[in-house]
Amino acid sequence: MEPWVAWSSIRYGGWWPCMQQGGWRFMIFEAPSNPTSGLKLRFCTNETQATREKFVKKLQGLGFDISVAEVTAPAPAACRLLKERGLRPHLLVHDDLVPEFADIDKTNPNCVVIGDAAENFSYANLNEAFRVLIGLEKPVLISLGKGRYYKETDGLKLDVGAYMKALEYACDVQAEVVGKPAKAFFESALAEMGVPPEQVMHRLAQIPSHVADFIRLSRNTLRVWDAPCLLSTAHFFPLYSCALFIDLLLYHTGHKDEYEMTNRRQ
Amino acid sequence: MEPWVAWSSIRYGGWWPCMQQGGWRFMIFEAPSNPTSGLKLRFCTNETQATREKFVKKLQGLGFDISVAEVTAPAPAACRLLKERGLRPHLLVHDDLVPEFADIDKTNPNCVVIGDAAENFSYANLNEAFRVLIGLEKPVLISLGKGRYYKETDGLKLDVGAYMKALEYACDVQAEVVGKPAKAFFESALAEMGVPPEQVMHRLAQIPSHVADFIRLSRNTLRVWDAPCLLSTAHFFPLYSCALFIDLLLYHTGHKDEYEMTNRRQ
Repeated sequence: MEPWVAWSSIRYGGWWPCMQQGGWRFMIFEAPSNPTSGLKLRFCTNETQATREKFVKKLQGLGFDISVAEVTAPAPAACRLLKERGLRPHLLVHDDLVPEFADIDKTNPNCVVIGDAAENFSYANLNEAFRVLIGLEKPVLISLGKGRYYKETDGLKLDVGAYMKALEYACDVQAEVVGKPAKAFFESALAEMGVPPEQVMHRLAQIPSHVADFIRLSRNTLRVWDAPCLLSTAHFFPLYSCALFIDLLLYHTGHKDEYEMTNRRQ
Repeated sequence: MEPWVAWSSIRYGGWWPCMQQGGWRFMIFEAPSNPTSGLKLRFCTNETQATREKFVKKLQGLGFDISVAEVTAPAPAACRLLKERGLRPHLLVHDDLVPEFADIDKTNPNCVVIGDAAENFSYANLNEAFRVLIGLEKPVLISLGKGRYYKETDGLKLDVGAYMKALEYACDVQAEVVGKPAKAFFESALAEMGVPPEQVMHRLAQIPSHVADFIRLSRNTLRVWDAPCLLSTAHFFPLYSCALFIDLLLYHTGHKDEYEMTNRRQ
C-alpha cells in the first residue's frame, strides 16, 4: 500500500490555539515519525505576513516539531510562478514577507503581487500599486489569497481579498490567486512532495464552496472537512474536526485498533 | 413652449480647465441670464472631497458665476436618503465633506457612508468601517460614487468605487450608490428643480455604458454625450463636445440664427 499523505491547513491565530487546548498537538505531530504508519504531513498555510522561517520559528516556540520544508505557503508558490513567466513584481506585501522574494528581479515591474500587507495597505501604497497596474498594456495582478477578513486580538481586519477586489475593479482585471483555495496552490504542494492527489487526505478548515477546486482535484481521496466555521464558534469547532481527522487517519493507515469513531463531532 | 433645462456634469481638474482655454465659459454662463432663452442650468457633480460651499467658492475664484443652489452633489443626496430611512451613518469621507452631514444623527451607526476619502482611506479607517458594517444584522453601505480612478496633478488616484468594492466583498453586500451615474441622483436633481425629465438636455461626460440609467430616465429628451473620454485625450476632447452642446442648446431654444453645427466634433 502506498503511504498516505496528510496535509493540514493551518493559520496561526485562528484555530491553532485550539490544537493546544485539545491535546491534538501530540497526535498530529507524532504521526510522521511513526515508522508503521508511513505518514507524511504537509502544512498548507495562507500566512502572508511573515516568511516561512519566521512562521515556523513561532510554531516551534510553541512546542511544535515542524520544519520549513514541510510548509507550503503562497509567497514561494508566487515566486515559482513569477520565475516561470518571467514576471518582475511590484510588491504590496507585509514588510516581514519581503525576504521571500529576495532572489526575484523587481526592477521595471510588469506585474503586481499583493499579500496581506496590513499597515502597508495605505492610501499611498495602494495608489502606487494601482499606477503600476494601469500603466501595463496587459495588467497582471497576482494575489497571495482572497480572504475577506480575519480576527486578531484587537478585532476584525480586512484581509487581502478586499484589497484585491479594489485593484481588480479599478483596473478592470481578474487577479490570479496563489493561495488556498486555488487549485494551483494545492497542485504546487503535491508537486513539492511528489505525491499524486489520489493518496492525499485533506483536512479542510473552510466551507465547501470555497474549496471547490480542491475537491475536484482530489476527488478520489478521502476528504474530511469542517462544517461552515462560523466566527462565533471558531474557538470550539476545531477540537471536534481535528479529532475526527486523526481518527480517520488511523483507520485508513491500518491502525484500526486505535480507531475510535466517536460521536465527538456535532 | 416650456423652458428647457440644461445640466452639466462638472468635475474640477478633469475637463474643467479646458473650458477656460476654449472660451466656453462665456457661452455657458451667459445662458441662464438671457431672458429670451429661458434656460436654467444645474451642475451635477460627483465631487465628494469638499462641501458644495467650498467647491463653489473655488469655482467663483476662477471667475465662474455659479451659486450653491445650482449645484447637485452626492453628499446632500445621501443626507436626504439617510433622513428618509432613519439611518445613522458611520462616515468614511474626506474631512472637508463632514460639514455636509452636520445635522445628521451619527450616534450608534446603523450604516456606513463612503466617499472619496483620499488620505482618510487608511488601513485603520477601512477596518473601522468594515467592523461597523459586519456588526450589523443587515449591512447597509451607501457610496457617494463608484468611480474607478481619477487624475490629479501628482498622478492617478484610486477613486471611491475601488474602496466600495473592497467593503462590498468583505461584507458580501451591494452598495447603494448615491452619485452619478445612479438614476436616483439625477432624479434628485430634477426634484430640486421641479422639472420633468422630458424637458432636460444633458451633457454627458462619461461613456454611454456608464450612464444607462440616466438614458432610461430621460429617454424623451435631447441627449448629447461625449465619445469615450480616453485619458490621453482628456485635455482636448471637451473643447469639441462642449461646443456641440452649446450649438444644440441654441438650436433647440429657438436661436437658430446663432446655431452653427460645424464639424468640430471629430
